[in-house]
Parts: sequence; structure tokens; C-alpha cells
Amino acid sequence: MALTLTPLQAIPLVQPADDLARMILDSLAVQRISLQDGDILVLAQKIVSKAEGRMKNLALVEPGAEALRYAEITGKDPRLLELILSESKEVVRTRENLIIVEHKLGFISANAGIDHSNVEASWGEPEDWVLLLPENPDQSAEKIRKAIEAECGCRIGVQIIDSHGRAWRMGTVGVTIGLSGIPGLVDLRGEPDLFDYHLRVTTVGAADELAAAASLVMGQAAEGTPVVHVRGFPYPLREGSLQELIRPKDLDLFR
Amino acid sequence: MALTLTPLQAIPLVQPADDLARMILDSLAVQRISLQDGDILVLAQKIVSKAEGRMKNLALVEPGAEALRYAEITGKDPRLLELILSESKEVVRTRENLIIVEHKLGFISANAGIDHSNVEASWGEPEDWVLLLPENPDQSAEKIRKAIEAECGCRIGVQIIDSHGRAWRMGTVGVTIGLSGIPGLVDLRGEPDLFDYHLRVTTVGAADELAAAASLVMGQAAEGTPVVHVRGFPYPLREGSLQELIRPKDLDLFR
Repeated sequence: MALTLTPLQAIPLVQPADDLARMILDSLAVQRISLQDGDILVLAQKIVSKAEGRMKNLALVEPGAEALRYAEITGKDPRLLELILSESKEVVRTRENLIIVEHKLGFISANAGIDHSNVEASWGEPEDWVLLLPENPDQSAEKIRKAIEAECGCRIGVQIIDSHGRAWRMGTVGVTIGLSGIPGLVDLRGEPDLFDYHLRVTTVGAADELAAAASLVMGQAAEGTPVVHVRGFPYPLREGSLQELIRPKDLDLFR
Repeated sequence: MALTLTPLQAIPLVQPADDLARMILDSLAVQRISLQDGDILVLAQKIVSKAEGRMKNLALVEPGAEALRYAEITGKDPRLLELILSESKEVVRTRENLIIVEHKLGFISANAGIDHSNVEASWGEPEDWVLLLPENPDQSAEKIRKAIEAECGCRIGVQIIDSHGRAWRMGTVGVTIGLSGIPGLVDLRGEPDLFDYHLRVTTVGAADELAAAASLVMGQAAEGTPVVHVRGFPYPLREGSLQELIRPKDLDLFR
């Protein structure tokens, strides 16, 4: 079966307290897409963060001693660093213009996922506004999923993604930061291979493969297609969580 | 525009010296897919390796001193380690049952991409046979692309993928190990964002996002769909290479 990823074209600009489930249902209707069991909706982190009011005005942030210290190391705005540190468990690496942290949610990322771009200024200078990640993206996904399932009467999955850099490869790729109703990992260990001889040892990061696929479709610039409809996800849907995808610290050889 | 990934169902088991371009063209015909400008074909590394005769019989491998030393550290078969070392520039990490290396091609991976599963034994015990990566996957992709383009008269891309683990996340994801006619990276730096204010700083690992998407469709177990047809890749095709996706050592903070 083919995997089809369709960007939703009619999602309006999202504002705090917007009803994302409603916007997605309306946009699906405009594109004449009827949800079916097994379909997945992938949302860019930014619209979830905006709907949840996670914009912060840097002008109101008072950097502490640690933020000032990292500002000297990295050359970054100490107010931004204050927010990054408040969103993080641990600083993993720094260098000029770069800070990589373990986010409170468990993943490793630059800037704790805090972003300057595509943040609309409601007052003050636009460069003063940044956007934090949703506080509990699994829960955000769950809420949107339940609202959409109640309307469509079918069993779907919802995933929230962001773009992360990688340790050894250039370029960002889409990764999961929250999910509901889809597996994070798919365990193929013990399944026979094509020649029925070897047993496989692979655990597939299925949700992250989907995140990368959806990210490709969303684009990264001004296109404004922050929701992607997915049909043909090849594994059975089940309850899942971001935590499946986070490598536990005792298995991490690279920090 | 939607992104559609269709697994080709009619690819026979691949043997050394098989003509992959011909097999793909035949399989496309069976599924009534007519190639168009901008389409991409994604191939699992294993069928390219097999067609290029990259199977090795461990019974014929004589482990050297370094392989024997790593066998003590990792508990792995010293003959397999001999092959892994011969395919690598540098050992990056080891622990019980694990060896992570910088492959000669530049990427960081476990076991230098050498795989036991889905290797058909032509003689000897099946567990004696392993499969190395293609020697020059960009060139392999180029050759297949040119052969298919000559037949279809259109401009396509060809990509070869494998599944890699990741430093900080659980589960493998599909990544590029060779490509022809598609961009490895897409540089969005300098493009305006939705509010026309900020300039973007993102370079997207577009080929790796596609690799992950195709890997999802191929599955990892016994399904036997090692080629995926892609329509709707959202960026312009151009010449590209694996090298774009490899983080240069001086930018690598994690080895």
C-alpha cells in the first residue's frame, strides 16, 4: 500500500487559544479529505506552541548568572539563554553561537527548541518574541486526537514534530516531540527475515521516520502548511509516547 | 502537492550481477507506474550490495590482531570485526556487543553497515555470509539512474538508503548512503519566514527526510519491497552527493 502525505492548505494563522482540532477538521473538509481508521495527522510544533500561548517576550526576561555565563561562551542573547536554561535539564555542548541541551522532555536539541522565526509580534519589536515548545506535547497530541476522533468517529493518530540537527550528519530532519495513538518504536526483533533463517534485531523508530516524511512535505520556510494528513502508515496504531524514542542516559555513549 | 511513496511489489530476489535498472523498470510496468520528471526511486542498500556481489563468506576471513582485540572488548565474531575494520576509517565507540565506526564513506554507523540478515547462502552455512555496503553508492545510484533515464526519457533521482541508529534517540531510521540527481541538503538560509521579517537559518537534510520516509514504506522485516517509487518531492532536483550529508570532523562535537 502506498504512503501518501498531503499538506493541508487551508490552515489559517494560529493565535493563542485557537481550537486546532476545529481548524484541522475545517481544512480537511475544504480539501475533501474524509478521515479513515489508521490515518495520522502530523502537526508542526509551532502551531501547537502558539495555540497554547507559549510565546515569550524577551524584553520581560531577566537573565540570571548562569545565562550571563553562557552568553559569554556562545555570544547569544542572555535573555534567550535564560529561557533555554529554564527549559532544560542539562547543557550538553556549547561553542560560538551554539548551545545544545537536554530538554526537560528528554531529547537533545539546540536552543531547547526555542525559535525566533514565524513568531508574530502582538506588541513590541518582532525580534523580541520567541516561541517555547508545548509543555506536554504528548498531552497536546492526545487532546487534539480525542477532539478529532469525536467528530470523525474513526481511530486516528496525532503527532507533533520539530526539526533537529544531528550529531554526525548535516541538515535538520523532522523528529517527533509528541504523539498520541501511534507507536513511537516498532519492535521487529524476533521476526524472520526473507530467508526465514535469521531473526531480526531491529527496532524501528517508526514515528521519527514519519516525522521526517511529514517535515519534508511541510517545508521549512514561508509555505505555511503546518499540518500534514498521512494515509498508509504501515504499522498497526497503538497508544504510544515520546518517551519510547528517548535514549536513556545509561545507553547514551555520546554526551 | 501530496508526496506519495509506493513500494514496488514485483522486484524478484536479487542475485550478483543482476540488472537492477531493468528489474525496476519491469516492476514499474507491472504496477502501471509511468515515470515522470521529478520522480525518485529509493533503493534499499541490500539489493544494490547483492547485485554488486558484496557478499563475504566469514569462513574465508582471517582476523588480524586488531580484530581479535575488539572481539575481546565486544564479544563479537572476530572475522566479522575484521571486515568491519577493513570497511572503516576509525572506531568511534565500543561496548559489549556493539562497535560504532566511521565508515570509509564518511558516516558513523554500527558494524560499518555490515549485515547478516537477508543474505542468501550460495554455499556453506547461512550464518557464515554477510553483506558489505556498495563500494561507491553515489556511483551505484548514478549508474542505475542513467540506465532508467535512458529508457523513460525523463529526469529522475535515485537514492540508496540504509537504517542507522542515532546518538540520542531509540530506534533506527532510514538514511541516505548514496544518491544521484537529488539534493542532499536544501539550503533555506536567507529565505523570509511567514511574517517576512526574520531570515531563516535552516539547512534541511532533505535527502535524509526522504530516506526515512522510504524506509517506513519498505519495512524492515520479511516484506521484500526494497524499492520505493516517490512522486511529489517538494524541492527542485539537482546533482547531489552523499558528501553533503556528512558532518565534517571539525564540526563534530560528539565523537
